[in-house]
Amino acid sequence: MLKVIKIGGNVVDNPEKLVKFLHDFATIDGPKILVHGGGKIATAISKALGIETTMINGRRVTDAETIKVVTMVYAGLINKDIVNKLNAGGCSSIGLSGADGNLILSKRRSPVPVDYGFVGDPEKVNSPLLASLIEQGFTPVVAPITTDGNGTLLNTNADTVAQTVATAMASHMETELVFCFEKKGVLQNVEDEDSVIPTITHSDFGRLKSEGVISDGMLPKIENAFNAIGGGVKKVVICSSDCVAEPGYGGTTIKE
Amino acid sequence: MLKVIKIGGNVVDNPEKLVKFLHDFATIDGPKILVHGGGKIATAISKALGIETTMINGRRVTDAETIKVVTMVYAGLINKDIVNKLNAGGCSSIGLSGADGNLILSKRRSPVPVDYGFVGDPEKVNSPLLASLIEQGFTPVVAPITTDGNGTLLNTNADTVAQTVATAMASHMETELVFCFEKKGVLQNVEDEDSVIPTITHSDFGRLKSEGVISDGMLPKIENAFNAIGGGVKKVVICSSDCVAEPGYGGTTIKE
Repeated sequence: MLKVIKIGGNVVDNPEKLVKFLHDFATIDGPKILVHGGGKIATAISKALGIETTMINGRRVTDAETIKVVTMVYAGLINKDIVNKLNAGGCSSIGLSGADGNLILSKRRSPVPVDYGFVGDPEKVNSPLLASLIEQGFTPVVAPITTDGNGTLLNTNADTVAQTVATAMASHMETELVFCFEKKGVLQNVEDEDSVIPTITHSDFGRLKSEGVISDGMLPKIENAFNAIGGGVKKVVICSSDCVAEPGYGGTTIKE
Repeated sequence: MLKVIKIGGNVVDNPEKLVKFLHDFATIDGPKILVHGGGKIATAISKALGIETTMINGRRVTDAETIKVVTMVYAGLINKDIVNKLNAGGCSSIGLSGADGNLILSKRRSPVPVDYGFVGDPEKVNSPLLASLIEQGFTPVVAPITTDGNGTLLNTNADTVAQTVATAMASHMETELVFCFEKKGVLQNVEDEDSVIPTITHSDFGRLKSEGVISDGMLPKIENAFNAIGGGVKKVVICSSDCVAEPGYGGTTIKE
């Protein structure tokens, strides 16, 4: 079973958490792919460079200067740090952006109704490249920068990158997708860290949305999860980055 | 014949020259590897971030903040821009730092007599990884960031990276090494752009040094060239980046 594991800012931006996560990740047996974000570091470096960060609906507006910053930070600083630490820990890995080998071709998002600038939504994954690297014993580490295939780099949501990669890989091998975040799973009661909902089916999702249990930032994550399941991914888990080395991850499993 | 081609700041820092070079590079038939520098952009971004750049004997002193900047700039900004432009131009390419797949393991330079900080000299190249990518039809694009194999990234001279990569590849296939720079070749008279010395043998080199024709920054470049020849590389050429698509490159050929 191939595991596609996504980590976001709460791990990437925290050196201690990152070291622990990478140690746990390296212990996972079998083929695996790591997809990372890193938004907070990009914001900090933008600020240091005097570039103002504008977010709309939680998404970064990516102008010509900002795409340079996120390319530097995601595909350079963060990606190479992760790859280097994994290799030092015995997990042989190679870092890729979506531009490398045209790994992820995206369509630039329409400027209407909101102009996000150089932002794209994935349309095609070079899954044979990932399959070949995995067959050679490498763990691909993917940064969320993609390309339009015509020379323009595009900033892309890391959850969506993970979902698209997992769905594309599902045609090569049995694949599961793991979204790591700061909580133990999807919570029944957001005030109670231990109220993890063990499984969510499609019909549960409708009910939990109407009850207001699932809202805001959790909605696109679970929609991504159902897209993956619909695309042939066997299992999607939403869990804490602390739990990737545990069997079953102890989080929320998304099921058809 | 595998061609390992190195470009430096005079191409990388000049968007028009870079586009022309990448167009020419894409037209070169047969297997090839591109190694790039990018020092001036790193200096500009360091400055914008308020990090002072210190050079000793033309080499960058790389403290803990500076290694982050050069990793971002070389392995992120420049590498992905080049890869993306090559792919858009029909040259299927993948960007790598020396950390990816432990491509280039280096020894951190001794702090005595000069403490350059996080700077390393290459000791081992994962040439099977490069050979495998080339066999799959990819052109590897290599950024001059290497690793000590124990989790520390090291800034490394791009000429030395190119020489080390070419020498390691020479055990897999016939290899030539091309150093592109701002002049048409090694000049007999530095004032006369057309006084290119067509070939330099080892005994010529001794004579040209003693005559003062070859000095300063050209010395390590030619020493690197002879190291490559001594390591099994068939041919080394020093030429202008404008000439990579021309047969013979019109530059200076270094011979045993």
